[in-house]
Amino acid sequence: MSGMQDVRALVFDVFGTVVDWRGGVAREAGPFLARHGGGDGFAFADAWRRRYQPAMEAVRSGQRPFERLDVLHRENLEALLPEFGIDPGRVGAGELDALNLAWHRLDPWPDVVAGLERLKRRFIIAPLSNGNIILMLDIAKRAGLPWDALLGAEVARAYKPRPEAYLRTAEVLALAPSQVCLVAAHNGDLAAARACGLRTAFVARPHEHGAGQTADLAPEQDWDLVAPDFEALAEHLGA
Amino acid sequence: MSGMQDVRALVFDVFGTVVDWRGGVAREAGPFLARHGGGDGFAFADAWRRRYQPAMEAVRSGQRPFERLDVLHRENLEALLPEFGIDPGRVGAGELDALNLAWHRLDPWPDVVAGLERLKRRFIIAPLSNGNIILMLDIAKRAGLPWDALLGAEVARAYKPRPEAYLRTAEVLALAPSQVCLVAAHNGDLAAARACGLRTAFVARPHEHGAGQTADLAPEQDWDLVAPDFEALAEHLGA
Repeated sequence: MSGMQDVRALVFDVFGTVVDWRGGVAREAGPFLARHGGGDGFAFADAWRRRYQPAMEAVRSGQRPFERLDVLHRENLEALLPEFGIDPGRVGAGELDALNLAWHRLDPWPDVVAGLERLKRRFIIAPLSNGNIILMLDIAKRAGLPWDALLGAEVARAYKPRPEAYLRTAEVLALAPSQVCLVAAHNGDLAAARACGLRTAFVARPHEHGAGQTADLAPEQDWDLVAPDFEALAEHLGA
Repeated sequence: MSGMQDVRALVFDVFGTVVDWRGGVAREAGPFLARHGGGDGFAFADAWRRRYQPAMEAVRSGQRPFERLDVLHRENLEALLPEFGIDPGRVGAGELDALNLAWHRLDPWPDVVAGLERLKRRFIIAPLSNGNIILMLDIAKRAGLPWDALLGAEVARAYKPRPEAYLRTAEVLALAPSQVCLVAAHNGDLAAARACGLRTAFVARPHEHGAGQTADLAPEQDWDLVAPDFEALAEHLGA
């Protein structure tokens, strides 16, 4: 809890920390694959997600200008289809657009809504996600996530873990970095936030990658706070 | 109602349309003036607001890079003090910072919260304000405004009535301009939105400028919708 006294805003990683992206994408990929010759929805979700970091890296490195995640997801989807024996040219653009929106319909983990409702009474709460605004908005509206604002890559015009993503978010909130705490299930995200002066809270999500998950099962640094879920986080913070 | 069938998002002007900026600023300016030799809070609010358009115009014209409204308000406050016989050098920066936050504590008109709650069930609702994100956030959190996102000048990096302010907001929402409706108490704002292809709804706020208000008492074009308040707006839209 050291260092948490001055925190005014909690900002949240979303994919994995707030929502189950793998289950949500698999749920919609399954019927799509069935229509196009078969395949496993979870394997499809994993393969789609594997193209996530490289696509953002092109923006981070300056190789291409900032582009919102919906566009990167759509490009990655088309590139991914041959891995599953599907010719992208034989699938209608409308069907791919619809599947791309699977990312807008992800479900939160069971503790999220109740935890956020409590945390919101005491803190500013907002996503600090690489997902773009309408993606965050659609997830929040469908699931009832009570965010105070939708922040992240599209507002900061930078993808995590670039320092600008964290520092511009604090600036938009008119707060010092030390008044902002990142809540995330990923040690790497927290390390980047800490390097910018933010406070850090680790919430493990041991099923983000399915039953055989090996990464991010435990905190790898002495984060300011470690909690098993968002309700426990609220409890720790007196919210 | 013509043209409203396809609307998915309602975006709102805030100062004057959603909140009573004049009453809110006067309420905090009164005690400030009393400490510094006296003066009328409403006159102070009006004088502060008179510097609002010229300050944004410097950004719109490209004379200075984009700067958030909190910074413009703070500059305007300092410039304004001599009009009220106050030497800015003799007032502490902390006291001016605190008074600048009067804009973060504005009250909504009485119909706003109930109207927005209804409209939110059927539409995406968001401010499209020249106010910056933390300014909108503080107002919303204090007053319980249930926005789905905080959009406007800081996200679009452009001040209304520049076309970019309206067009980039539609783009962020992944909507065509015709799927977005601006709700505003100001004919000029609606005219600029219409020129960009947005739908338009006029809600008169005849006391925005006090008892003697002469402008914006009635619609000056055939706006897509005209309603006396936000609850009537919800009624018209079947929300």
